[in-house]
Amino acid sequence: MARIVKKFGGTSVGDVDCIKHVAELIKADVDKGHEIVVVVSARSGVTNELIARAKSIDPDPVDREMDMLLVAGEQETIALAAMALHALGVKAVSMTGAMAGIMTDTSHTRARIVSMDCQRLVDCLESKQVVIVAGFQGVDLEGQITTLGRGGSDLSAIALAKGVQADLCQIYTDVDGVYTADPRLVPKARKLSEISYEEMLELASLGTKVMQARSVEFSNKFNVPFEVRSSFNDIPGTIVKEEVSSMEDVVVRGVALDKNQAKVTITNLPDKPGTAATVFNGLSQANVVVDMIVQNIGRNGVANMTFTVPRDDTGRASKAVESILETLGGGEVTLVGDIAKLSVVGIGMRTHSGVAEKLFAALGDTKANIQIISTSEIKISVVIDENDSDRALQAVHKAFGLDTN
Amino acid sequence: MARIVKKFGGTSVGDVDCIKHVAELIKADVDKGHEIVVVVSARSGVTNELIARAKSIDPDPVDREMDMLLVAGEQETIALAAMALHALGVKAVSMTGAMAGIMTDTSHTRARIVSMDCQRLVDCLESKQVVIVAGFQGVDLEGQITTLGRGGSDLSAIALAKGVQADLCQIYTDVDGVYTADPRLVPKARKLSEISYEEMLELASLGTKVMQARSVEFSNKFNVPFEVRSSFNDIPGTIVKEEVSSMEDVVVRGVALDKNQAKVTITNLPDKPGTAATVFNGLSQANVVVDMIVQNIGRNGVANMTFTVPRDDTGRASKAVESILETLGGGEVTLVGDIAKLSVVGIGMRTHSGVAEKLFAALGDTKANIQIISTSEIKISVVIDENDSDRALQAVHKAFGLDTN
Repeated sequence: MARIVKKFGGTSVGDVDCIKHVAELIKADVDKGHEIVVVVSARSGVTNELIARAKSIDPDPVDREMDMLLVAGEQETIALAAMALHALGVKAVSMTGAMAGIMTDTSHTRARIVSMDCQRLVDCLESKQVVIVAGFQGVDLEGQITTLGRGGSDLSAIALAKGVQADLCQIYTDVDGVYTADPRLVPKARKLSEISYEEMLELASLGTKVMQARSVEFSNKFNVPFEVRSSFNDIPGTIVKEEVSSMEDVVVRGVALDKNQAKVTITNLPDKPGTAATVFNGLSQANVVVDMIVQNIGRNGVANMTFTVPRDDTGRASKAVESILETLGGGEVTLVGDIAKLSVVGIGMRTHSGVAEKLFAALGDTKANIQIISTSEIKISVVIDENDSDRALQAVHKAFGLDTN
Repeated sequence: MARIVKKFGGTSVGDVDCIKHVAELIKADVDKGHEIVVVVSARSGVTNELIARAKSIDPDPVDREMDMLLVAGEQETIALAAMALHALGVKAVSMTGAMAGIMTDTSHTRARIVSMDCQRLVDCLESKQVVIVAGFQGVDLEGQITTLGRGGSDLSAIALAKGVQADLCQIYTDVDGVYTADPRLVPKARKLSEISYEEMLELASLGTKVMQARSVEFSNKFNVPFEVRSSFNDIPGTIVKEEVSSMEDVVVRGVALDKNQAKVTITNLPDKPGTAATVFNGLSQANVVVDMIVQNIGRNGVANMTFTVPRDDTGRASKAVESILETLGGGEVTLVGDIAKLSVVGIGMRTHSGVAEKLFAALGDTKANIQIISTSEIKISVVIDENDSDRALQAVHKAFGLDTN
């Protein structure tokens, strides 16, 4: 007997038939004698519908009320899922985030979990009931309903796995697991049987859309291993867990490509102390998340600075930079939208050399021009032209032996 | 400055434009300096949609999960209504039934309010915020979400009016108020400016669909006067309040017609002590609510018994009776679906005589044959053929001077 947390996203519970299918999956585990906690999202599309309705009332709706609105989506799913289990003769009980004991701070629409009080939930498990918890939601100390931000249901699942000391946490999604690269772009990409938190974290934040980085960070912090797997077949997925020494034998675990970036270059910027701080303060106040940053040493008292931002934020970023340059009294801004960020990731890099050379050689062979380079302990990222990026991704994947390993 | 509870039903908050209109109505009162509590239902159609989805998963869904499911409907409306007020520059905060302090027993889908703890709500009012409460829902002592049954939002409003000691409780609906008869059937029906709880109660339970009897009972018990009025115009509605002596001058306040009844007749029933108890126990166990009952004294050791049931329950009632008759060892059952119940109501009847005679005369003039008669202190009801009922209603309305008073 094991205690298992199973999380199903919006597409897995998209309609009545999907919900019945999920109930069958759960029943199979119950029949094996396992204790099951289920975390579900809103049916796919529902959250966007609710947001659209809110925006047609107020283009900038207040955060507290957005939370109150959006939790309705998950609440519908938990009730329907509990009914589907009852219909199969399985005892089940639904719980809101608050009832499941997910306590958060008061930051509406992006609350952070501060503690877990899972006694009520554990009591239900011990009385042989499946507990179905609304993902994405929590409650603050004053009893106000909060939400954990987009992708928050994964976070709910991992926090609950920690809270009930689960043996296993399974994140069901529409992909089989984590691949060495996006299989739609690299036909030879292979599914990984396991991956470390840190590698997953870099892949998650680099455009591999399996999970949000926040959930992986949380699982890393509290050491909650989890499995990413598909709800549409019964194939084992990818286990995401603490690093083990054998993982270091693989130098590069995967290659990620992020096409959702734009490049901002500021030229002729007055080169004096505090300039960079002024620029990035201004961007942060405009709520623009800056990713890679490169600054060249200036000549003639001017500097050139380049950074990347999410492509959706380009307008906001450019407006913010214009106003910063006015304050600084100089500089011109250039935007380039059609770039892509390619990254190789692997904890083996820490102990192996030659990764950068191999990457640059592979890119050179495909005539992809490198515009920016950025490195960390377990990853190397380059910005290249978007038009070269698919070809480059395949070449790099092959160069690191990921096609065949 | 007054403290006002305003309740808006599903059609009043049916879509985004309706919700914006409701926000305007509320703002007008806020601008006058009033403290406002708003109770809203789910958008019209949403509750039925959710029920349909539940039934497609499990034809007989478990009550606890139905409650969890259905409250999602109101939760959406309170958030959208709060946003609409924010968009108009009015400070507003939404609350679930639990947050508003509506404490109930544990009877899911038909919970009864056991206490009100409105401190949090009053604090918000005193800090000049409009409070928008999800109608129809409450919470039991263990924190389980409950619902108050169909029409429960009216009950929420009246309970909150009591809980916050409101000066006024306004029930907004799609009719202008309470009429002497259904204006669609009696063109000369007039709107009443006031009516006593007891009269309203009889009218509510007799097929005048303005409010559910339970809400009126509650307002009577706790003496919470309320106004029934339209959300589509600014015309004063009908005040429902404690009886005052001047009300007795009007002998008949209104005439109600209920076409949603069926008649069940049992003939040749063994006439011995306990027979009636066996019959009505059996019906109660089959969850059939019996309305009017008549029994004729039997000849040759048999009795004839007639009663009415809601037309939707006819199948269930007839099945229950068949099985009861088997137990009793005799009797035949006959069903008649096309009947109508016509009632005249007025607290003045207590002190005036001749009401029954006038009623029977009016019915005789229209050739409507009376099948059953039943009387109480403030009402006389008769069952007649449904085909005669519209004509009879108009004649009785005229006979009691309600056309012109």
